[in-house]
Amino acid sequence: MELDHVGVAVADLEVSLARWAPLLGRPETVPEEVPSQRVRVAFLRVGDTHVELVAPLSPESAVGKFLASRGEGVHHLAFRVPSVARALDDLVQRNERVVDRAPRTGARGRTVGFAHPSAFGGVLVEFVEGP
Amino acid sequence: MELDHVGVAVADLEVSLARWAPLLGRPETVPEEVPSQRVRVAFLRVGDTHVELVAPLSPESAVGKFLASRGEGVHHLAFRVPSVARALDDLVQRNERVVDRAPRTGARGRTVGFAHPSAFGGVLVEFVEGP
Repeated sequence: MELDHVGVAVADLEVSLARWAPLLGRPETVPEEVPSQRVRVAFLRVGDTHVELVAPLSPESAVGKFLASRGEGVHHLAFRVPSVARALDDLVQRNERVVDRAPRTGARGRTVGFAHPSAFGGVLVEFVEGP
Repeated sequence: MELDHVGVAVADLEVSLARWAPLLGRPETVPEEVPSQRVRVAFLRVGDTHVELVAPLSPESAVGKFLASRGEGVHHLAFRVPSVARALDDLVQRNERVVDRAPRTGARGRTVGFAHPSAFGGVLVEFVEGP
């Protein structure tokens, strides 16, 4: 099991990139829009994992609502798993809640799926398919 | 730069260990009390990093107050740096706020220091000294 990334909800991507640059440097790739989530994201490498800065494209997006209610801060933890479908099914089998019943395409074209925060004691967990 | 661990505030350490076990397994070491922070912690390995579950020993501790106001969830991100003193000084030089003006001893006997959440856009950042 690997930690693929830590997702951080931010109001303004460029302001946040400037804020993190002294500690983590600049992103290796240009910021990317994820239309299905109505967000714009940038990945900052930290060793074998990443900090993903996530800015809403709409206040009605999930991240926009998160910012309105909780403010900027850590939004989710993403773990790399061999099969997102199986990881989601495992939760459902254990009577845990999931946000996504089936895998979908997320940032970087990767197959992803979200558990419900109740499944991990208030932590929103994303599964990212990969080796 | 490495991500040393992700700190997660939890109400009950044993309940949380059971909840995370299907995904991350069991901790490699027994839970440890950190008297200076009035918390009890356990580290779960995830690849080259860890999830640290942090339970308050007192509702008056920083983590106890965090739980009372925000509930369970991600509490801080800890980055490994060659010198905690220098990392804290760098922030002060840039007119950012810090929780700790000087390094102190944290969990696992490591030298640590906390920035103020305002320094990283709402994310509480801990520095952990190490290679």
